[in-house]
Parts: sequence; C-alpha cells; structure tokens
Amino acid sequence: MSLLVVGSVAYDAIETPFGKVDRTLGGAASYFALAASRFTPVRLVGVVGDDFEKRDEDILRHHRIDVAGLERAAGKTFFWAGRYSQNMNERTTLATELNVFAAFNPKLPPSFTDSPYVFLANIDPTLQHSVLKQIRGKPKLVALDTMNYWIERTPAELRETLKHTQVLMINDDETRQLSGEHNLLRAAKRIFSMGPKTLVIKRGEHGALMVHDRFLFSVPGFPLEEVHDPTGAGDSFAGGFMGYLASAGRVTDEALRRAMVFGSVLGSFAVEKFGVERLKTLTLREIRARAMKFHRLTAFEL
Amino acid sequence: MSLLVVGSVAYDAIETPFGKVDRTLGGAASYFALAASRFTPVRLVGVVGDDFEKRDEDILRHHRIDVAGLERAAGKTFFWAGRYSQNMNERTTLATELNVFAAFNPKLPPSFTDSPYVFLANIDPTLQHSVLKQIRGKPKLVALDTMNYWIERTPAELRETLKHTQVLMINDDETRQLSGEHNLLRAAKRIFSMGPKTLVIKRGEHGALMVHDRFLFSVPGFPLEEVHDPTGAGDSFAGGFMGYLASAGRVTDEALRRAMVFGSVLGSFAVEKFGVERLKTLTLREIRARAMKFHRLTAFEL
Repeated sequence: MSLLVVGSVAYDAIETPFGKVDRTLGGAASYFALAASRFTPVRLVGVVGDDFEKRDEDILRHHRIDVAGLERAAGKTFFWAGRYSQNMNERTTLATELNVFAAFNPKLPPSFTDSPYVFLANIDPTLQHSVLKQIRGKPKLVALDTMNYWIERTPAELRETLKHTQVLMINDDETRQLSGEHNLLRAAKRIFSMGPKTLVIKRGEHGALMVHDRFLFSVPGFPLEEVHDPTGAGDSFAGGFMGYLASAGRVTDEALRRAMVFGSVLGSFAVEKFGVERLKTLTLREIRARAMKFHRLTAFEL
Repeated sequence: MSLLVVGSVAYDAIETPFGKVDRTLGGAASYFALAASRFTPVRLVGVVGDDFEKRDEDILRHHRIDVAGLERAAGKTFFWAGRYSQNMNERTTLATELNVFAAFNPKLPPSFTDSPYVFLANIDPTLQHSVLKQIRGKPKLVALDTMNYWIERTPAELRETLKHTQVLMINDDETRQLSGEHNLLRAAKRIFSMGPKTLVIKRGEHGALMVHDRFLFSVPGFPLEEVHDPTGAGDSFAGGFMGYLASAGRVTDEALRRAMVFGSVLGSFAVEKFGVERLKTLTLREIRARAMKFHRLTAFEL
C-alpha cells in the first residue's frame, strides 16, 4: 500500500575517515523514500531549489518514488555539511543552509491525499499537523520523527500533532526530554498518554527498542567491520520500518517486530557507503539475506 | 560440573537514588558465585580480613558455594564505597581500601585443583596465571575478566595469561584498549590472535555481544522500570554465563548463546535490589521465567 513521506530533501557535504563527498543527495525524505521503496510505492512531499539537478530527481524516480509532491522553489536547495570524527562517534556540523526549506509549506497533490501510511520526518510539528489535515479520512498508520529543537521550542504544537500519531520514532535523549523521565519504560508510558501507542527508540550502534502497549521488542545494531558514513541511518531505519509495514498491509504485533528488523537492515546497509549510494543499488535479495543474519545474530532456544 | 572462581570478596558501601547501604557483602567473586550457584556447585578462592562476619560467610555457604578457598588474613576486608548519580549513569568511587586484598596470593585447596570450569575475575594477571598453574591437567573452559588498569600497567603479563584463556569478558572500552582497534569486529580478530576464541563484550544497559570464531550473538539489556543498584551487574552476568555453561557440561554454539541469555538474566536481577540481596532469594523458576521474557523480547519470524 502507498506510503507518504514528508520531509527534507537536501544536498549534503560529508567528510568521514573513509573519504569526502560534496553536494550529494541527502535529507531525511530522500533516505526514507529510497529505503522504503524497496518494499512499497512511495509518495514524496518536499521542496528543492532551482539548483536541484535532474540526475538527483531521477534517482528518486527510478525507485518507484512518486515525486509529484516535490515542489521546486526559487532559490537554493537545503544544504548541510558535516564531518565525523576518527571513530565516527562524534559529528560536527560545518554548515546548515536552510535555503528554500526555510519556507517549506507541504502541499499534498490530490493523488496523495488517500495515503494509508504516512511518515512525518523531522520538521516543524505545525507543518506535520498540516499534512495530516490534508489527508482524506483517517490513515491506517501515522509515524512521526522529531528532535530536541521542536521538543523545546514548540512543545504545544508537538503535543497536538502527537494526538494524531500512532508510532513515535526518536532516540534515547529525545525520549527522556519529551517525557521528562529518565527511565525508558516509564518515559514510554507518559508518551502513550500523549497519543502514540508505539514508541520506537533508535539507539544508533546499539540498535532499537520498541515499547508497545502490549509488548517490548529489541533489535541489536548490526555489527559491521566498516561504517563509511553514518548519515541517514535513522531515516533509512524509518524507511525500512514503514516500507515493510505498508507492504505487509496489516499492523499486527508480528509485523511490527519484522518492521523493526527490516528497519535495522536498511539502516545497516545505508552506512556502508557514502550518502544514498548503498541504498541506490540495494536489492530485495540482499535485504532478505541480511534479515536472516539478524535472525542468526539474536536467535536462541531455551 | 564444578566451577572455580577466583577474585575479590569485599564489603561495599553503596549510595544510589533509591537508598544507601553500609558494609554489605560485595566483590566480584561474591556476585559471581551467588549468580553461578543457581546452576552449578561453585568453588570460591579469595581473601577476607578478621572483620569478615560469619553471617556473610553463611550467605555463601547456604548457596552451594564451597568456601574452602576463602582465606582469612590478619587485617581488614577489602572495602569499597561508591555513589551513583541521579540517573545511575555515573559512578563516583568514594573509597577503595584494598586492605588484605593488597597481598592476595590465591592458593587452591587440593580439592579445587581438578576444576573443569574456571573464572578468573578482575585481578592482577600474574595472579590469574598462578591460579591456572595450580590446576591439574587442562580445564574445559577458562574465562577471564580484566580492566584498563591491567591493560595499561601489565600488558605482557596479561598477554601471557590470555594464551591460556578461552573466553574473555570485558566491556567496549577495554576491548578497544586491549586491541588498539576501535571497530569491535576487527578488535575481536586481534584478540583471537592473543588466545581467546570467544569475546564477550559487556555493554551495560545495552546488553552484551558475543564475537566467536564461527558466529556473532547479541543479547539486549533487559528493560527494567527500576534499577536500584547497578553494582555487580557485570560479575553477576559472568556468574550466570559460566554457571549455565558448567551445568550444561558441553560448550556448544547453542550452549554459548543460552549462556549469554542466562548471564543477562542474572545481571538484570542483580540490579533490582542493593548489593547481593536479590541474588540471595533468586529461584531457578524466576530465572527461567525471565529467560522466557528475553526470548519474547528478541524473537521474530521472517
């Protein structure tokens, strides 16, 4: 079933111990869409500037991503530059130029307003809410990402948007900040009272933890010998997670567990090369093989 | 089968946001032995002072722990005092008084020298090696814990002891420091060349990762709503791990996976109460129930 993503499309300049790229396709919506498109048709809503190259739009088009919602505005595309430390455990932001993204006001093409699965990437909660208002009827599943900036600056707007959200995907620190509670299980209970009934806590190299009304599910980070570029890992995780769920069509407990695994699979592939390079060539066969590796990594019999 | 542990027996003073205890039974060997004794008979080698109370020796005796190797020396028992921060994520050591432990020279009673399973808790590598020399024949499995202090101060002695070790149980930082390699998989390969063929990386709340010649296995931290005292979690993990293996009798890949789970189970129980309190009352039925919870926490079908 169709999966709508609303979020940033950007050009990134990235430097890691393994190399350097300038002006490569990036942004949460790009990573998400490329990861999710392995499972299901994806509809993308975002904004780019008049410098956005056909080559990059073609990368999206070639992966079953409907770019009818990719607005072209006068000005430059959102630009981000960052550098990772020797051990990849620290990231320094060298530049954040919002450009056309500063005035982003997501508008859904009529063909997108029936989307049953919706992912609201990390943008202003007011804009996230405006997306939901444009959807006809009630989507089957709305998932949302946010960050400390919105938790601090626009708490009321975030709370309002969370009322219409089923799955919240954030990291440990954001979970603690949003709930005002250090313990993650108690934090989840407070967040459940805000609307979401499923909390997915992304923990980077330590994997991810799902706290659900009825169960807990944990998936480890996939041990890799070489991580070339951690950029986009979380958005690729979200893409694998939501892409799998949209393809499964039913949100059962078992499907949610598998979604966590496919999210981790996509996140683990994304970091193997720079930018979206690895996602561009990734096949369903490779995804299935790595999901089996996750099974062997975690399976035991009592 | 019998399991020998050599390490510290101490009195601890512990302060956490949940309370405070003075002079409670502690030390790596105490936690290890109490955790392991749920699975198998344990033989303990350590040293205490003339202030060590019968009450505390009885705690050990009452749990199938053979204390024939618990030496009583003139002077005071090793004393440690520490305080945990509000979120339990930082620990301040307030006092470390080695006392009789400073001159510890482990001597195995004749009845201990046939121990098939051996755990060398975190002590001077030269003493760890001297324990192995006292064992008749070749033990079935030797596991070892160490820390940054020995990695820095006595690298040659540690390397010598590692040659006779099959399982190394340390944390992320120690893995990186010992191998001189940040990536954990590459670090494991270097450590394999030193002797051990199994590396168990303890990651606190993030669980544990086993890197073995033939496979990887990851187990998450058990999500708890209340952690009262993290002291001894790693030693209890080691006790559950080795205790299970000794009881299984054969070190197969499947047994190693289950050992990781039972290690995590014991570690998760240990932190629920202060000091060794929770381990004292823990039943095999409770252990099995939590192992099943670990299974539900991690199981998925593709």
